[in-house]
Amino acid sequence: MGTALLTDHYELTMLQAALRDGTAARRSVFEVFARRLPRGRRYGVVAGTGRFLDALERFTFDAADLAFLTATGVVDDDTAAWLADFRFSGDVWGYAEGDCYFPESPILRVEGPFAEAVVLETLALSIYNHDCAIAAAASRMTQAAGDRPLIEMGSRRAHERAAVAAARAAYLCGFATTSNLEAGRTYGVPTAGTAAHAFTLVHDDERAAFAAQLATAGPGTTLLVDTYDVPEAVKLAVELAGPDLGAVRIDSGDLRVVAEEVRAQLDALGAPGTRIVVTGDLDEYSIAALAVAPCDGYGVGTSLVTGSGAPTASMVYKLVAREDSSGELKPVAKASPGKPSRGGRKHAHRRFADGVATAELVTVTEAGLTPEDRPLQVPLVRDGEIVGREPLTEARERHRRALSELPAHALHLSKGDPALPTLLV
Amino acid sequence: MGTALLTDHYELTMLQAALRDGTAARRSVFEVFARRLPRGRRYGVVAGTGRFLDALERFTFDAADLAFLTATGVVDDDTAAWLADFRFSGDVWGYAEGDCYFPESPILRVEGPFAEAVVLETLALSIYNHDCAIAAAASRMTQAAGDRPLIEMGSRRAHERAAVAAARAAYLCGFATTSNLEAGRTYGVPTAGTAAHAFTLVHDDERAAFAAQLATAGPGTTLLVDTYDVPEAVKLAVELAGPDLGAVRIDSGDLRVVAEEVRAQLDALGAPGTRIVVTGDLDEYSIAALAVAPCDGYGVGTSLVTGSGAPTASMVYKLVAREDSSGELKPVAKASPGKPSRGGRKHAHRRFADGVATAELVTVTEAGLTPEDRPLQVPLVRDGEIVGREPLTEARERHRRALSELPAHALHLSKGDPALPTLLV
Repeated sequence: MGTALLTDHYELTMLQAALRDGTAARRSVFEVFARRLPRGRRYGVVAGTGRFLDALERFTFDAADLAFLTATGVVDDDTAAWLADFRFSGDVWGYAEGDCYFPESPILRVEGPFAEAVVLETLALSIYNHDCAIAAAASRMTQAAGDRPLIEMGSRRAHERAAVAAARAAYLCGFATTSNLEAGRTYGVPTAGTAAHAFTLVHDDERAAFAAQLATAGPGTTLLVDTYDVPEAVKLAVELAGPDLGAVRIDSGDLRVVAEEVRAQLDALGAPGTRIVVTGDLDEYSIAALAVAPCDGYGVGTSLVTGSGAPTASMVYKLVAREDSSGELKPVAKASPGKPSRGGRKHAHRRFADGVATAELVTVTEAGLTPEDRPLQVPLVRDGEIVGREPLTEARERHRRALSELPAHALHLSKGDPALPTLLV
Repeated sequence: MGTALLTDHYELTMLQAALRDGTAARRSVFEVFARRLPRGRRYGVVAGTGRFLDALERFTFDAADLAFLTATGVVDDDTAAWLADFRFSGDVWGYAEGDCYFPESPILRVEGPFAEAVVLETLALSIYNHDCAIAAAASRMTQAAGDRPLIEMGSRRAHERAAVAAARAAYLCGFATTSNLEAGRTYGVPTAGTAAHAFTLVHDDERAAFAAQLATAGPGTTLLVDTYDVPEAVKLAVELAGPDLGAVRIDSGDLRVVAEEVRAQLDALGAPGTRIVVTGDLDEYSIAALAVAPCDGYGVGTSLVTGSGAPTASMVYKLVAREDSSGELKPVAKASPGKPSRGGRKHAHRRFADGVATAELVTVTEAGLTPEDRPLQVPLVRDGEIVGREPLTEARERHRRALSELPAHALHLSKGDPALPTLLV
């Protein structure tokens, strides 16, 4: 499926004007960054890189795209002819997926002729703004859950395609599984799921429902025990499945209290190995509060797919340098009050002391950098060729590592300032 | 593009168990409703119906889908064979798109064999939860804007495909245009856009940028005047375009103050017909506050695509009735604390007095209804055949009409209770 029309009208209007007056060819540098983190967040997570590269590869204008654009007068025939041949031929550098970011971190840099780079604004921002927002929430939930596995089950609360991307971002940040089958197919995220209340209700009684599920899924399955009466259901579950019952799921009530009661009941019934999975409007705070409860896993939905209060990452795509009429690359910046941008092509490094990150360096020169400052930008596209693809599991491992290098206070759930200062030189 | 895997793993697990024990064939009724509106909201807006019907039509399992499902063990071969032949054969009724809803309103009712209806949960909820959330925000913004047109420009802050649906929902609720080209192509939403700051910055100076834009777009275009100095830019804009300049756009600063200054300047320059469009982190409250400012249009982005604080509509999909072993349709409901559901297939009507809605009636019998109570559910799918398609403009007109029939306090922006009581009989 093509991605070329996942674009704002004005990008093509600008393109058309720039093609006419020659500025279309000016070498340009655009950067993607967030001026700030969502209020109280201590770090951001770079997510969406793999998806952006896939979308960029499919960013071409086919006959149907061009017919729409010319019929509606969005572009003229000359511009349509240029678009028909369009393939991005420039360079893209970015933070590696799964790494952390801070205010002003240039997580993506797109370089090429103005015409080729200006049309990628919406595509890049849509993907990074969504995926970074979900990833930041997922990362905090993973921290809150500690060693207990998290199941992503928010698809129903998100746009049907955004749900697939959300499942990917959650896995990137340490979730164990997702309910979303398309995320399993497209991104290899392990999928999981057993039954809803509807399955119990469609049967004449809970006994028939549990027996049916056990007959097809075996005793290792997870039985949902809060459709009618939890103690009755737990008793029935162990009676039917035996002590090897995999897990029970609790989706309502005071989860801490119910989990304690169910744990005691399971132990008394001789099923100490049966796990307890809890679900139901969990977020990072309620997960943290359940650390003392005998839960063995958490299912998270709404709060994950809505970024736990920050559903978008406020990334912007700004022209920071371009050739002038003499052919020289010059920094540019607008002066709009409250929304300043800093001109110039940026380098990004992370500074460390004793293995712990101490600062984010975002600089227009490399003067003042030491050999120990770690460069954060990696090549993603070179002369139009995608060179930055990697398995999602590598990005997942990178995120785990990146978190381990942040100062301890970065991982506090409480509201705070960004964990690293961004030094702009 | 198929939609069958936009589904939660557990739906297919339930399907498999139900196929084995025969409950798969039980006639079942599922309803979609929200237990509550987002905090402080006075009405909800039904949105997503057209998209749901499109997605339902493409909800079939192709060979690649089935290969994934069997290779990963999500389903066994018997279940895969059943899925290979799957086409929904049941009935769907729902509130007409654009109508309003209230707590417990059954905005969608899916009836058919359990097997066919249980697998539609995630698809239906994803679409309605997203689109209703955006529509509710859009409707409030349209109210706040009064006669001034709204431009939807939030694509960059939303997942790239969710952005297309958001543009559709915004148009449904009265927005005039969108920046999103794919929404223009797929749904016929009028698109608009002129230039970003990058266009000014890529040129050697603002004069060259404005001249280039005017050369291709004509004087009726909108020039962005806050890249450097607003008064200088306004002066230059009128100098280059003449008094027929279509509009100027302001994207930063105190929009009310700047709009007043720019209006005075435009009038003094002899361009009283040049409109002023303001953009920049607007929501329904800031739009309302700008009513006294000389703005002629508003561009809205982030707050629209994130539902202005309520990014999902908390719709659920619940089994409310099914055949028992004797073949009789029986109401069913779970008893989970805090998440009760009411059993039984519901009728929905709106009661009016003197042309103004007074109550939402959600009843399991039709006893007590009067001929004046307006039925709210329309047929969308009959025996598997889609019968509920309509042009988006019809739904748009319906929304306008539905709002006009609500009591006046329904349209207050301030936080309040649902404007109609839901009477459950």
